[in-house]
Amino acid sequence: MRVEAALAASALLLIPGPAHARKKATPAPVAAPAQLIGEALTSEVSWLRLEHLCDRIGHRLSGSPALDQAIAWAQDAMNQDALANVRAEPVTVPVWVRGHERLTQLSPREQELDVLALGGSVGTPEGGVEADVLVVSSFDELDALPDAEIAGRIVLFDVPFTTYGATVQYRGHGASAAARRGAVAALVRSVTPVSLDTPHTGNMEYDEDAPRIPAAAVTVEAASRMHRLQEAGAPARVRLELGSHDAGTAPSANVVGEVMGRELPDEIVVVGCHLDSWDVGQGAQDDGGGCVSALEVGRLIARLPQAPRRTVRIVLFTNEENGLAGGRAYAQAHAGERHVAAIESDTGTGAAAGFSLDVRRTGPEAGRYSDQDEAAYEVLVEQLQAVRPLLAPLQADGFRQSYAGSDIAPLIATGTPGFGVDHDTTGYWPIHHTEADTLDKIDPIVFRRNAAAMAVLTWWLAERAP
Amino acid sequence: MRVEAALAASALLLIPGPAHARKKATPAPVAAPAQLIGEALTSEVSWLRLEHLCDRIGHRLSGSPALDQAIAWAQDAMNQDALANVRAEPVTVPVWVRGHERLTQLSPREQELDVLALGGSVGTPEGGVEADVLVVSSFDELDALPDAEIAGRIVLFDVPFTTYGATVQYRGHGASAAARRGAVAALVRSVTPVSLDTPHTGNMEYDEDAPRIPAAAVTVEAASRMHRLQEAGAPARVRLELGSHDAGTAPSANVVGEVMGRELPDEIVVVGCHLDSWDVGQGAQDDGGGCVSALEVGRLIARLPQAPRRTVRIVLFTNEENGLAGGRAYAQAHAGERHVAAIESDTGTGAAAGFSLDVRRTGPEAGRYSDQDEAAYEVLVEQLQAVRPLLAPLQADGFRQSYAGSDIAPLIATGTPGFGVDHDTTGYWPIHHTEADTLDKIDPIVFRRNAAAMAVLTWWLAERAP
Repeated sequence: MRVEAALAASALLLIPGPAHARKKATPAPVAAPAQLIGEALTSEVSWLRLEHLCDRIGHRLSGSPALDQAIAWAQDAMNQDALANVRAEPVTVPVWVRGHERLTQLSPREQELDVLALGGSVGTPEGGVEADVLVVSSFDELDALPDAEIAGRIVLFDVPFTTYGATVQYRGHGASAAARRGAVAALVRSVTPVSLDTPHTGNMEYDEDAPRIPAAAVTVEAASRMHRLQEAGAPARVRLELGSHDAGTAPSANVVGEVMGRELPDEIVVVGCHLDSWDVGQGAQDDGGGCVSALEVGRLIARLPQAPRRTVRIVLFTNEENGLAGGRAYAQAHAGERHVAAIESDTGTGAAAGFSLDVRRTGPEAGRYSDQDEAAYEVLVEQLQAVRPLLAPLQADGFRQSYAGSDIAPLIATGTPGFGVDHDTTGYWPIHHTEADTLDKIDPIVFRRNAAAMAVLTWWLAERAP
Repeated sequence: MRVEAALAASALLLIPGPAHARKKATPAPVAAPAQLIGEALTSEVSWLRLEHLCDRIGHRLSGSPALDQAIAWAQDAMNQDALANVRAEPVTVPVWVRGHERLTQLSPREQELDVLALGGSVGTPEGGVEADVLVVSSFDELDALPDAEIAGRIVLFDVPFTTYGATVQYRGHGASAAARRGAVAALVRSVTPVSLDTPHTGNMEYDEDAPRIPAAAVTVEAASRMHRLQEAGAPARVRLELGSHDAGTAPSANVVGEVMGRELPDEIVVVGCHLDSWDVGQGAQDDGGGCVSALEVGRLIARLPQAPRRTVRIVLFTNEENGLAGGRAYAQAHAGERHVAAIESDTGTGAAAGFSLDVRRTGPEAGRYSDQDEAAYEVLVEQLQAVRPLLAPLQADGFRQSYAGSDIAPLIATGTPGFGVDHDTTGYWPIHHTEADTLDKIDPIVFRRNAAAMAVLTWWLAERAP
C-alpha cells in the first residue's frame, strides 16, 4: 500500500459512526504476555540497573567487597519491585586472590607478555619460575613426549578454539596433566576464537595425584608466537611470577525474592543467574545481564494484575565462577520443595533464539542423556508447543536440547526441567572472562527483548494448567 | 564428469602418437607476469622473512636498537636477492621514549585503566596529574563550553570511529585544543571500530600557541564508561602518570636496493613501505607486511630472465610513524632524478582489491585535487586499462582515486603518480598501533597474493613503452 493510500485508509477509521457505535466499550484487559512484552521493551528500569551494576559496582569475585555491595543492591531492587520474602540466603564461598602477576619472555627477544592467572592457581615462589617453554597442541601430543622433554619446563597448551566445551578442558585440567609429567608451571592459550592481545581467565582444578603448579592464561598472539619460535628451533624462555593464593572462605549469599503463586504456591519456577563474576572487566555479560534480566522477570510478573498460578522465585546465585557453592547450597536447602522448572540466563546477552532444554532423571553430568531422559524431553517439547506463539513475536520461540546453566544444574540433576536462555554467543566468547566484558558491548534493545522472552516463558510455566 | 570418466579421458592423452607428433617442441618462455605470480604464490621466502621480522626483531620505533637490526637485516635480504646498489641512506630521526605509564580511576570506583601515551606526548610531573574528567564528543562540543568548565580538568575526547581520517584528528590535535582552554591533560578514545579493551597509540602534535599537556589514549570501554558516568552525574576523577619524553635525535636510514633498467635506467619506479613501527605489538601489518612485500617485488623482478626497461628501486623508509623524516629525506636527496611512479603498501595486509591512485600537480594535501589533477588522473586510468588483465587473475585489478602512502607523498607532491596497495582494512583498524598487530592476524595466502599484485604492477610500470 502506498503511503497516501495508507493515510486515507486510517483516516476512514476516524470518521464518527452512529451514536450507538460511538459508545465506548470497556476495553478487554491486556493479556499477561502482551503486558510483559510491552513493559519489558519500553521500560528504562532494567538498563539503568545494568548500568549501575557495571559502572558503580563493577566486577565482583566471591569474597570481594563488590560482591557484598551487589548482594545488598539486589535485595534493594527486589524490595523496590515489591517481591515477597526478599532475603539473602547465607552461603560460604571460597576466596581466591589474584595478586601481582607478570610474564616476561627472556629469549629469543626480551618482552613483557599479557597474562592472567587462572582462578584457583597457586602462586609462584618469590622471584618467579624461570624455564624454557614447551608448546603442545593437545593432551595427546603431551602424552607422546618422553618425560625428559617435559621435566623442568613450562608447558604451554596452544589449542585453537573449537567449541567452548572442548577447548576449556585445557584451561581446567592442563596444569595437572603437565605437572604429572614434571612440568614446573603451565600456560594455556586463552579460550577464545578472537583476540586483540586479550588474556582470558577462568577456573582451573588440581587433580589429587599431581603436584600443584602455577597456571596462567596467555593471549592467542603470545601462544602462537611461542609455538612458531619452537618450530623455528628457538623455543622461548620465560619467567612467570604469580602472587595468586587461596585465602580461605568468606560469608556470601544467594539473593532470593518471590511472586507467590495464587493457586499452587508450593510449586516453584526458579529464575536464576549468578551475581558473582571474575575479577576483570565489569562482569557485564557474565553474568550481570543475566541477573538484571532475572530481576526484570520478577519485577514484570509482580506488576501483573493477577499473580500466576505457581510461585515465581528469582534467585541470584553466588560463586558460580569458582566453586558453584551458591547453586549447591540452594539445591540442598530447598531439597524438600517442588521445583517445577528452573530457568537460567548465563551465556551472555546476544539475541536469544529461544531456550535450551535440559531434562534428565539421572546424574549430574552435562550432555549425557539416558533413553528415559530422551522420552521426558520429547514430552516437554510437545507441551511447549503452546508457548511458542507467545514467544514468536520476540523471535525467541526455538527450543533445543542442550546445557541450561551451572547454577541450576544441581536442581536439574534431581529431575527439575532446566531452561537456558539460548543466546547468540558470537560476541560472547571473545569477551568472556576478560577486561572487555563491559557494558558497551551490550545492545540495549536486544537485552530488553531477551528479558521479555524470559518473562513470557516464566509466566507460562507458572500459569499453565496443572 | 565422473572420476572414472576423467581418468579414462586423461589416459587417452598418454597414448603415443606417430613419431613426428612426439617430437618435443621448444616451449615458449614463461611470460614475466606469469613468472612473477607463480613464484610469489609458491615461494616460502616472503613468509619466512615476515616471521623473522615479527618474531625475532619485533616492534621497531625510530631510534631503537630493533630498528637498527631491521635496517641491517633488510640490506642482507637485498644482497641475498642480488639487487644492485644496496645501501642504507642516512636519515636523522627524532627519538621519543614512552617510559612508565599508568592511569588510575580514583572515583566513583577505584580501578586501573589500560592506557598508552600518544607518540610525541610530554610526560606528567612526578606523581602524575590528578583531575576530574570532562568528556566531550567533538571539538564543537568543547568549543561551546565555558572556560570555567574546562580549566583544571582532563579532557577526554570520546569520539566513535567513523573513518580513520576523520577520527584521527582528535588523536592528532585534541591535546592542543583542550590545552588552549585550560585543560591539564588530554585523553582520547582509541581510534578503532572494535575493541577488546585495547588501547591504540599513534602520533600527536602540539600547536605552537597552546601549552604542551600530556596526552594518552584510553580504550573504547573506558571512554564509554567515563562518558556514562558523566551523564549519570558522577564524573570520573583520575590520575594520569606518563614518563614519556623527547630524547633528541638518532641516526637511522632508508634501505635502498635496485634492479637497473635495461633501456631507461634513469627512469625510476619506486616501491616503498616503512620499516619503523610503533613500540607495541610486532609492527606486523604496520608496516612489516608492506616491507616484506616490497622486498619480494625486488626479489621476484631480479629473478626475471630480462630486467624491465626502467629501474625498479625498492625503498624501505624510516620514521614514517613519528616524523616522516625518511620520506622527506629521500625526496630531497633524489630530487634531481626522474621518478615515473611510486608504489607503497601501508594499509595492512587484507586482500587487495587493486590500487589507489594519487595523481596531482600541486600541494601535498591528501585528498585535495585540482581540475588539472583530475585530468591527469583520467589519462592515467586510461593507460592503466592495459595492466588490468594482468592483475585480474589476482582479483586485484581495481583502481580508485585516493591517498597512496605517507612515505611517497613528498614524491607525489612533485608530480610522480602514486599507487597505494588498496587493502581491505576491515581487520586492520582494530589492530592498528596496538599490541595486537602481530603475525597471527596475517593470512599467508592473501599476503602472497598482494605481493604478487605489487610485483605485476611494478613490472608493468617499469616495462611499458616510453
